[in-house]
Amino acid sequence: MAVYTHLGAEDLARLIAEFDVGSLRSAKGIAEGVSNSNWLIETAGRDGQGARFILTVYEERTEVSDLPFFLGLMDHLSDHACPVPATIHDRQGQAFRTLDGKALALIEFLPGVSVSQPTQGQARAVGAALARVHLAGGDFAMRRANTLGPAGWRELIDGCGAGGLEGIDPALGDLVRRELAEIEAQWPAGLPSGVIHADLFPDNVLMLGDEVTGLIDFYFACTDLFAYDVAVTHAAWCFDATGTRFDAALSAALLAGYEAVRPLSPAEHAALPLLARGAAMRFLASRAYDWLHTPDGALVTRKDPMAFARRLQFYRENPGLFA
Amino acid sequence: MAVYTHLGAEDLARLIAEFDVGSLRSAKGIAEGVSNSNWLIETAGRDGQGARFILTVYEERTEVSDLPFFLGLMDHLSDHACPVPATIHDRQGQAFRTLDGKALALIEFLPGVSVSQPTQGQARAVGAALARVHLAGGDFAMRRANTLGPAGWRELIDGCGAGGLEGIDPALGDLVRRELAEIEAQWPAGLPSGVIHADLFPDNVLMLGDEVTGLIDFYFACTDLFAYDVAVTHAAWCFDATGTRFDAALSAALLAGYEAVRPLSPAEHAALPLLARGAAMRFLASRAYDWLHTPDGALVTRKDPMAFARRLQFYRENPGLFA
Repeated sequence: MAVYTHLGAEDLARLIAEFDVGSLRSAKGIAEGVSNSNWLIETAGRDGQGARFILTVYEERTEVSDLPFFLGLMDHLSDHACPVPATIHDRQGQAFRTLDGKALALIEFLPGVSVSQPTQGQARAVGAALARVHLAGGDFAMRRANTLGPAGWRELIDGCGAGGLEGIDPALGDLVRRELAEIEAQWPAGLPSGVIHADLFPDNVLMLGDEVTGLIDFYFACTDLFAYDVAVTHAAWCFDATGTRFDAALSAALLAGYEAVRPLSPAEHAALPLLARGAAMRFLASRAYDWLHTPDGALVTRKDPMAFARRLQFYRENPGLFA
Repeated sequence: MAVYTHLGAEDLARLIAEFDVGSLRSAKGIAEGVSNSNWLIETAGRDGQGARFILTVYEERTEVSDLPFFLGLMDHLSDHACPVPATIHDRQGQAFRTLDGKALALIEFLPGVSVSQPTQGQARAVGAALARVHLAGGDFAMRRANTLGPAGWRELIDGCGAGGLEGIDPALGDLVRRELAEIEAQWPAGLPSGVIHADLFPDNVLMLGDEVTGLIDFYFACTDLFAYDVAVTHAAWCFDATGTRFDAALSAALLAGYEAVRPLSPAEHAALPLLARGAAMRFLASRAYDWLHTPDGALVTRKDPMAFARRLQFYRENPGLFA
């Protein structure tokens, strides 16, 4: 939630001139995205009627070598009628450019706001939109391994160091070690897989009423199990922010919305309890690592790992949840 | 440069419904304004064609009792054909509302970008726009004392404590004490006065090419000497950011632009060298105070007081500059 790169008006005007979108009319740095810098850009548009875009400058956390996958996927999904912003290619046809050593992309602006307290209708719509992404990604040719799968979680947890987890909460180390071993041992093979978003929190969904108008921030997207993406979205939408209160009605609506578009197989259903523990572990691991490695007073707000430790406990204690 | 207040989509939608601007379509927190939180808001508009606004939530540094002056002035100047955003009054006719104990206002969105390296044509246009504000403010009925005049500077400097200035730079304390005494003793009386912006840095001016499309951030506006406002704008536009390099061509263009609309009187001309030292002192004082009172690692970027100590030295050493 910060703008890390300074771009003066003159830099921005020169940059925008590299795209066929009309001249620059306005540029506001926006407090969105935790690891990249973003501007809301307005131009005259090709027809002079005005047009809006998001300009993203990729900071250290995004690998430039992954950009063809991320941006190509967004274009593919947009072409396949998913509410995903397309990238605006420059006059040379490139999906991204480089400025002062940093990669940047101009991306379609989509209307909508991110809800804080989803309704059942909204959860249902999000489930359906996720299923549409899974289906539409079927003929996307590129692949990207999930760097934040079980092996990645163990790396992050190891990176917390001896006593690190206990410093966050006395019981956290035991919970994580026991769960991580079980999840790794039981991780399913052979379930349907393809392109997944892998980070579909409410912040990454734009809505107008019950309609999903935008799925954004595909910078964790990868090739992995569809049902794991369902589990991530479940963990992201069906609890309050602290992970204390589970909302069974939102859970039912989210799953019903998904299955109305892409029914889960019996094997996927059976795997959901474990996948949900995995999804909780994934955010617990990255949050714990960041918690211990973010300097006090840094510009980035640290997110509480315990919000996902509570979800992990809940999923562990309620294996019948998805039955 | 931060968003201090969290407003969820549901809060925002309810808030926007209090104005006759159509339903909320988008809201992005923007990294603009050092002391308030701002969102770029898009609504359906009264005609369904879309409309944009800036929503400002006033944080601690803005006195709510001053808002009728600031917002009334913006409306007055907008009515008088100055490129100043008007406030959008709510359905009850109020210029500002209160939410969770904080005041907020919905403000017209104006196109344009803030330049980093102004051209002479841009400096000339800014001078002319400032003069138009001074003339248009003539029949604005409200008054507000300048809390950051000479007495305010002394308060800030006293607040730096014994040895505070020397901690910033060994020679700073002597410079400030000597200059402050001279400026106070020679401060002019009887020059033309009225509504002034008092903070017209490039950040607070939106431009498209050589055209000024917006003068924004009136939250230091007050009733004071017009020529002092010219001096502030001169200090803000005619140096590089570090205050090391003075640009005589920008200076000439800015003053010529101003005088093409409102010629300065001989007494104002004669006072400019001292007023410019005062303008440099005003930002030196507030930056030195903030430098010493901003905790390490705070969200706000501290601005270097020495950039204005250098301007102060320059104005002191070049009294013939405005001749």
